[in-house]
Amino acid sequence: MEMLKQMILSRGTVKSGGVLRVDSFLNHQIDINLYQEIGKEFYRLFGSENVTKIVTIEASGIGIACITAQFFNVPVVFAKKSKTSNVADDNYVGHIYSFTHQCNNDILIHKSYINENDRVLLIDDFLAKGSALEGLIDIVTTAKAHLVGAGTVIEKGFQGGGDKLRQAGIRVESLAIIDAMDEDGTISFRN
Amino acid sequence: MEMLKQMILSRGTVKSGGVLRVDSFLNHQIDINLYQEIGKEFYRLFGSENVTKIVTIEASGIGIACITAQFFNVPVVFAKKSKTSNVADDNYVGHIYSFTHQCNNDILIHKSYINENDRVLLIDDFLAKGSALEGLIDIVTTAKAHLVGAGTVIEKGFQGGGDKLRQAGIRVESLAIIDAMDEDGTISFRN
Repeated sequence: MEMLKQMILSRGTVKSGGVLRVDSFLNHQIDINLYQEIGKEFYRLFGSENVTKIVTIEASGIGIACITAQFFNVPVVFAKKSKTSNVADDNYVGHIYSFTHQCNNDILIHKSYINENDRVLLIDDFLAKGSALEGLIDIVTTAKAHLVGAGTVIEKGFQGGGDKLRQAGIRVESLAIIDAMDEDGTISFRN
Repeated sequence: MEMLKQMILSRGTVKSGGVLRVDSFLNHQIDINLYQEIGKEFYRLFGSENVTKIVTIEASGIGIACITAQFFNVPVVFAKKSKTSNVADDNYVGHIYSFTHQCNNDILIHKSYINENDRVLLIDDFLAKGSALEGLIDIVTTAKAHLVGAGTVIEKGFQGGGDKLRQAGIRVESLAIIDAMDEDGTISFRN
């Protein structure tokens, strides 16, 4: 998605440790026109898939999922990060490992909001090692829903999560895939 | 807002301890048509105020803020809940107390995303004792931005936060104000 790539190049900054900061337009301050173009693009990619529900994870996935859901005219469900292991029986639980915060997190979706009749599109802002998507896929699988695929805005291709999921047969569409980046500001996109 | 009140009555549930669960359409599963009507209504209320930025707080405020921002055609900034007190100098910090989780939280907004030229509309899903809004107001004040007001979806009027803010001269518009509710399911709205 050309508009997104241009914005990453002009307004993103590369930090040490493979961190790309896109705070100014994607996940702290939000450029709402960009979000609308992102939603349109996900609809172009997945619009023929009879999606019944868009599933994401708090916090920064929620806005993108909501804007995207308008094009599909379906509900959003966002997985909540659990602070306790005291989880009631009425939730599906996925497990994710945060490489940023170096800790395990459970994520929860109430059982009444996803079921075997659903065709689920996963949406998230970032795809790096794929842990968040794997946690969501666990939940979709446990709920016996059909996974249409995953749409992510920025994929750090060099961290391998997206390709691992694709090799497992999951349709993953990322609007910009970064195959290499450098603290001097050089960013190489996959074609 | 009549559509919202009807949805609270038909799909909300009252739990012990003054808890209203609206998980099925507002803050876990999201009814995207309701969100659009909410956004329209906030625009009807604040559209003439020359808002330059919509500010909210993660997580459940983000979706409502994004949908609303489309009507205003302005960016959203969401405050992040800080896990550490190790806060860099480049953030504005607000303090909130979570009555749900009984703990203090710092919330952060990077200084580059709000400034003295901004006319800020605060948006959130719930208003109870007002702590989250007070934290956001602290940030807006410190940034010397102009506070246009606050739009919240559901206000628990009986918890007093909204009226306290109004008495302090802040324009607070809630789309449904609940003045009383009972575990037998009775919910009384303010007229």
